Amino acid sequence: MQFDRKLQLATDLYQFTMGNVYVQDGKAKEEAVFDVFIRTNPFQGGYTVAAGLEQVIDYINGLCFTREDTALLKKNHPEFSDVFLDYLENFKFEGEIFAIPEGTIIFPMEPIIRVKAPLVQAQIVETTILSIINHQTLIATKASRIIEEAKGDVVMEFGLRRAHGTEAGYYGARAAVIGGCTGTSVVETEEMLERPSMGTMSHSFIQSYDTELEAFEKFVQYNPDNAVLLVDTYNTLSQGVPNAIRVFKKALADGNVTSGYGIRIDSGDLAYLSTEARKMLDEAGLESAMIVASSDLDEHLIKDLKSQGAKINSWGVGTKLITAYDCPSLGGVYKLSEIAGKPKLKVSDDPGKITNPGYKKIYRIYGKSNDMALADLITLEDEVINQDEPLTIFHPVYTWKKRNITDYYVRELLVPVFIKGECVYDCPTISEIQQHLKNEKENLWPAFKRMVNPHVYHVDLSEKLWSLKQQLLSDAE
Amino acid sequence: MQFDRKLQLATDLYQFTMGNVYVQDGKAKEEAVFDVFIRTNPFQGGYTVAAGLEQVIDYINGLCFTREDTALLKKNHPEFSDVFLDYLENFKFEGEIFAIPEGTIIFPMEPIIRVKAPLVQAQIVETTILSIINHQTLIATKASRIIEEAKGDVVMEFGLRRAHGTEAGYYGARAAVIGGCTGTSVVETEEMLERPSMGTMSHSFIQSYDTELEAFEKFVQYNPDNAVLLVDTYNTLSQGVPNAIRVFKKALADGNVTSGYGIRIDSGDLAYLSTEARKMLDEAGLESAMIVASSDLDEHLIKDLKSQGAKINSWGVGTKLITAYDCPSLGGVYKLSEIAGKPKLKVSDDPGKITNPGYKKIYRIYGKSNDMALADLITLEDEVINQDEPLTIFHPVYTWKKRNITDYYVRELLVPVFIKGECVYDCPTISEIQQHLKNEKENLWPAFKRMVNPHVYHVDLSEKLWSLKQQLLSDAE
Repeated sequence: MQFDRKLQLATDLYQFTMGNVYVQDGKAKEEAVFDVFIRTNPFQGGYTVAAGLEQVIDYINGLCFTREDTALLKKNHPEFSDVFLDYLENFKFEGEIFAIPEGTIIFPMEPIIRVKAPLVQAQIVETTILSIINHQTLIATKASRIIEEAKGDVVMEFGLRRAHGTEAGYYGARAAVIGGCTGTSVVETEEMLERPSMGTMSHSFIQSYDTELEAFEKFVQYNPDNAVLLVDTYNTLSQGVPNAIRVFKKALADGNVTSGYGIRIDSGDLAYLSTEARKMLDEAGLESAMIVASSDLDEHLIKDLKSQGAKINSWGVGTKLITAYDCPSLGGVYKLSEIAGKPKLKVSDDPGKITNPGYKKIYRIYGKSNDMALADLITLEDEVINQDEPLTIFHPVYTWKKRNITDYYVRELLVPVFIKGECVYDCPTISEIQQHLKNEKENLWPAFKRMVNPHVYHVDLSEKLWSLKQQLLSDAE
Repeated sequence: MQFDRKLQLATDLYQFTMGNVYVQDGKAKEEAVFDVFIRTNPFQGGYTVAAGLEQVIDYINGLCFTREDTALLKKNHPEFSDVFLDYLENFKFEGEIFAIPEGTIIFPMEPIIRVKAPLVQAQIVETTILSIINHQTLIATKASRIIEEAKGDVVMEFGLRRAHGTEAGYYGARAAVIGGCTGTSVVETEEMLERPSMGTMSHSFIQSYDTELEAFEKFVQYNPDNAVLLVDTYNTLSQGVPNAIRVFKKALADGNVTSGYGIRIDSGDLAYLSTEARKMLDEAGLESAMIVASSDLDEHLIKDLKSQGAKINSWGVGTKLITAYDCPSLGGVYKLSEIAGKPKLKVSDDPGKITNPGYKKIYRIYGKSNDMALADLITLEDEVINQDEPLTIFHPVYTWKKRNITDYYVRELLVPVFIKGECVYDCPTISEIQQHLKNEKENLWPAFKRMVNPHVYHVDLSEKLWSLKQQLLSDAE
């Protein structure tokens, strides 16, 4: 179910405008290094979940320009020279890409993807990479936050109708599963996510029958293994739940319901309705009936409902997850850090917008005794940490803030994905990525994962990188 | 550049789950009517702009299920009967669809799309239609609000890197142009939107040269007709603008810049920087140099900058438009209004969520003297307004609020799109849709278009429809 869609023109015009200058100006082959990174965690959270790499790989692998493409560019943009259009027709990505695997916890200023390639090639892939990574990383992070508050309950992604179009629903569902959702309602994802899609019925199903009772009976008859009945079409407690109980008792007695039965509440006061419904179900001997809730849920509402004692086993999350409603954009950027061997940084009046120069990598430092992540250290590519010696790291702004670390080990976060234009990376399955995130979160202290005012995880620069940055900042003045 | 992607599985599983019951229960052919409508205008605004119909038409025209699709469904969902899977393999949409044309101003509770089809068919198209319409209608409305505050300036859509994936960027750009944007940076849209994409350079272009001056010279050399220089890489006023002036003066003297030259400011205090830059450009005799601004712009910031006297000719709008940042989801729903000839409504404790029953249409009432829209009236399909007689309309809740209208004419908003499964609608071009919205907005009083606390446009029900609704509400008690 991979899409046939080619993404070579799913980019900003200025990539070609710049490429046209570079090719004519003899700069096409200058080697450039660009970093993809975020400046802040979304949702005022303490961490971010990397996602989207597999689609970036598909994009790079398929990246080429047809004669139809160049004819279109020539027609609409007379400034594009024939030598540039020829360049595009013979385009093949020849560079190197390192990336942080999907499902890894990441933090601001860390290169999620590092591209080293001839300048035109490295420039042309900017927008498409950002569009893919910004979207999936955002939704995976939102899902992870929701999963955190669901405390082990099943969470299902139900938001396609409110997604920013059907593709956003498709890849949004992928990111939601990476973030920890059990599944999604999006049928189209079944091959990609290697799991059946999920869902039961809408209000129109109930309304299409003369009575709610008849609708329930018919539904259970044809869905004995997944008999979740929507109980809020007319009146949840006076009609919906009693009708569901009546149907379940008969179906259980007749052996027509085997497993996976219950009710779904889609409106009203979920705390009150779920506790009352739970009582009614239990009193009828239906302790194994599950209660599914849906209705504009997010991590805040789930936490709130749980604190009120709501009796909900399973959560269907829609709009707030698939649109990342409270922070619908991730500000991932793609910044030049080296050109023709010269490290570069972007200066700015806003210190938070100054970039880190050079060809870099990231070490995550773990405590040996408990495998918990202690801090991350961004270094230049040629730096090696001697794990047998204590490590002193310092805050990149408040440099007197130092930490001396002993009994640790390190892991490099960036792994090779493309070498000389060839993909060298085997994409893990979705279940493996989901499990990887689970492991990552277990190795992260709760203080970084809490919903409000999380502790700030330390991402420091090596002394060598820090000195290079200071030097370039001085030179720029 | 139409995508090859098939959308038949870009839907929620429950559409098939319900279809499986309907087919086995002999209900597949019951004729159902569903309405797509919103319950509130997004962005706390006074109106909404319909968009996305062309993609809905493409979807319906291509809607069929392959053996591969049914094999996948059978494998993952053993509850799906062979008779249902056969039904899917022979699926052809045979229904009727009426819709409000794209670029039309719409209001809450009005059917934007009305589907009348055999129950399974009408049900199966729900999610995909909503996903398309909710997305494009949202972005078109946001764009229209931004255009309103730009007061005739050029507005360009630059948000692809922050869109929810590349398809959201593609169709988001379409919606942005419908809403009034002059163009977009997304190259892929050039055929669809019948216009060249737009853009100039990024900071990395400047950084890839040893000096800003050299970068500017090279850019102008190869882009004589579109020489817009990004001036904020180092220091906007002390370096960027002076360098741009130096390059423009030489290029103008040499005849190397012909038209369309200027500067772009992408950070900092746009009010201050643009007024200072304007002075510097004017003093250098470059009155025709344009100033383009970009940097997290939306309608509020544009209005604010204008009120401060910012000297900006052209606005590049990104994140806030393409994600509809302050309201990233449109709550369009798809509700059953009639089944097998029987009108239906959805009751709810929340009066705003009660639906309008029956097979309906919408009249927009205009004043004869000035062509301004006075109110909309939702009626049953068989109702005709005699335009020679005065018309009395009343508020659907506060029924004593009556208006007696004379000297008016009416327009029906819903037009036929599919009849007996065949498309009978010629989609207008994007420029025609953009012009249609412009006309629509000219016929809408400013009170409904203002950004904050807009006046509420009257959408009333005919007496016959109102009575039917009251009757069904009484019956439901």
